[in-house]
Amino acid sequence: MGFKFDLLKVDTDTEARRGKIKTAHGEINTPIFMPVGTQATVKAMTPDELKEIQTEIILANTYHLYLRPGHDLIKKAGGLHQFMNWDKPILTDSGGFQVFSLSDLREIKEEGVYFQSHIDGSRHFISPEKSIEIQNALGSDIVMAFDECPPEPNNYNYVKKSLERTIRWAERSKEAMDNNKQSLFGIIQGGVFRDLREKSIQKMVEINFPGYAIGGLSVGEAKKDMLKTLDYTARQMPSDKPRYLMGVGTPQDLIEGVMRGIDMFDCVMPTRIARHGSIYTSEGRITIRNATYKDDFKAPDPNCNCQVCQNYSRAYIRHLLKRKEILGIRLTTYHNLYFFINLMQRIRDSIDNNNFLSFREKFYQRYL
Amino acid sequence: MGFKFDLLKVDTDTEARRGKIKTAHGEINTPIFMPVGTQATVKAMTPDELKEIQTEIILANTYHLYLRPGHDLIKKAGGLHQFMNWDKPILTDSGGFQVFSLSDLREIKEEGVYFQSHIDGSRHFISPEKSIEIQNALGSDIVMAFDECPPEPNNYNYVKKSLERTIRWAERSKEAMDNNKQSLFGIIQGGVFRDLREKSIQKMVEINFPGYAIGGLSVGEAKKDMLKTLDYTARQMPSDKPRYLMGVGTPQDLIEGVMRGIDMFDCVMPTRIARHGSIYTSEGRITIRNATYKDDFKAPDPNCNCQVCQNYSRAYIRHLLKRKEILGIRLTTYHNLYFFINLMQRIRDSIDNNNFLSFREKFYQRYL
Repeated sequence: MGFKFDLLKVDTDTEARRGKIKTAHGEINTPIFMPVGTQATVKAMTPDELKEIQTEIILANTYHLYLRPGHDLIKKAGGLHQFMNWDKPILTDSGGFQVFSLSDLREIKEEGVYFQSHIDGSRHFISPEKSIEIQNALGSDIVMAFDECPPEPNNYNYVKKSLERTIRWAERSKEAMDNNKQSLFGIIQGGVFRDLREKSIQKMVEINFPGYAIGGLSVGEAKKDMLKTLDYTARQMPSDKPRYLMGVGTPQDLIEGVMRGIDMFDCVMPTRIARHGSIYTSEGRITIRNATYKDDFKAPDPNCNCQVCQNYSRAYIRHLLKRKEILGIRLTTYHNLYFFINLMQRIRDSIDNNNFLSFREKFYQRYL
Repeated sequence: MGFKFDLLKVDTDTEARRGKIKTAHGEINTPIFMPVGTQATVKAMTPDELKEIQTEIILANTYHLYLRPGHDLIKKAGGLHQFMNWDKPILTDSGGFQVFSLSDLREIKEEGVYFQSHIDGSRHFISPEKSIEIQNALGSDIVMAFDECPPEPNNYNYVKKSLERTIRWAERSKEAMDNNKQSLFGIIQGGVFRDLREKSIQKMVEINFPGYAIGGLSVGEAKKDMLKTLDYTARQMPSDKPRYLMGVGTPQDLIEGVMRGIDMFDCVMPTRIARHGSIYTSEGRITIRNATYKDDFKAPDPNCNCQVCQNYSRAYIRHLLKRKEILGIRLTTYHNLYFFINLMQRIRDSIDNNNFLSFREKFYQRYL
């Protein structure tokens, strides 16, 4: 129930696609960027503001919400949508990535992962079944299969062994799903190795999921490796299912991902750099916190139509950031998310209008 | 130009008054509460949100804005309204209170105050003329005369000497005003001494200001001293001019102040305690950050109509505050300011409807 993907159009010059995902909490136009709401809040934003900038889906982190406030509490609140007052679609990750990147003393076994909380050292165990149980309690619309994102994508033997376990975990994740309100996506791993990526695709397609993600392509490998891997991976994934590139990326990454046939993206970058005083503009990223902008009364991005750029100057935002005023972070966050979401809207329009490649070229001419 | 005060009604049972102040940036209905925007931002709020909760005027701090970002920069931006995107009235304090409470190594002389910045130790001098110059550059609608708020309101000799200087400073402040877009209020000092308060009123009225403030009644003296002083001070102030009780106070203080004939209030309390995890409710102040509220899914104040109470639970807000999420502070701040502004609206309505005293009684029955 609920989930459906319609592939509306494929670009004539590239692999870029237009699509629409239907979920129990509404529709998502693809290609889409999903703001990250790690702890049941997209940092510094209200749900109303997310809607104001046309956010169609957000991501929440299973690992964080499992530890605090706990999935039982969120279930008691009526699920994550109710708890955080967001009635549009939510995607939850499996917790795997955070278990492997944040927790201490982890031990990976066939049954799952034993680890200590990075917060208080308490001992925990997450398995495919447990991850699904947590995501069920959260009530997200899109649920991710429990996987390992290998720490060294260039270590063939490790990646191979890890991938085989991830495939078995994907089967167990699917078996553990006991409702049809949520949709489970499988995750393609395989590091930078073509044979492993291809094996991963083949096995995940055999298990059969309503959508597939590409994992392990935003964790330190060189950009050209990412694009190369993406090239052959995306095009072998089923064309009638959404393709989600996890944890990516910069504005350029989004454009390059779309060109290679990706439908969904998420990244903490726009919200994170906002808190550190940087913003995206049509001419590239700037650190608005710098002294250069002290008496610059222009809009943050003079070519942007967002509420922040209509109402506030660089000088004012710099003042707020220097004074550690919350409003400073609110304004940079709002603008950066608008920039990403609006970029995806313009990408979708360009595919609709058969001029994606020329949009891409014009974007790069300006964006340094 | 611009400034006008209409006394619309005086309560039959008490000194409570209804009035309307007209300024170049719009009207203010009194009695009014003014949220504090120390550094050109009411902490954690946007101007739009302030309007949503019916804020009619805000206060900004001359001392802070003089030091950073500097009044010259704000003048260059087109004034404080333009700089911070707030088109309704602004009141600026004189800087005196902060010079005396925050700065280091201050030396009070007849000509003004020499001090070192509490931030970087740089040396500064503020006089009545300088304070007016800064406030002129900021472009606030209501400007305060430069005064000393005596640190020990019970030390007769000090308070007397300080008061006489403050009277001379008030004369100089008035002489320094060189525009008619802004209105200058005089400040009544005199500690807890009736003869000094009366002398202060007499002298300030002789100088003749469009409005008068009562200073030095929120800085550590006992509450019964405050009310006693307020009793005889307020009623001797001109009835045809607005009366502003500076830096006050709690919900009870506002009600007691109104009952004694006060028209204007400001206080950092609602925004400050919000950042520390406390909120005002119709049944008193609660620390929503406490474990008690961990799985309390009720509205922050079940009797409140604000956007926060309509959409979020205590459990969710507690989770956000515990996780140091900005949204937590946004929600508690918004609610607390709504509580204060709505309280003043209800007070105004009760005066209009000739039932202020019964409103007061009902409020206290519930509010613990």
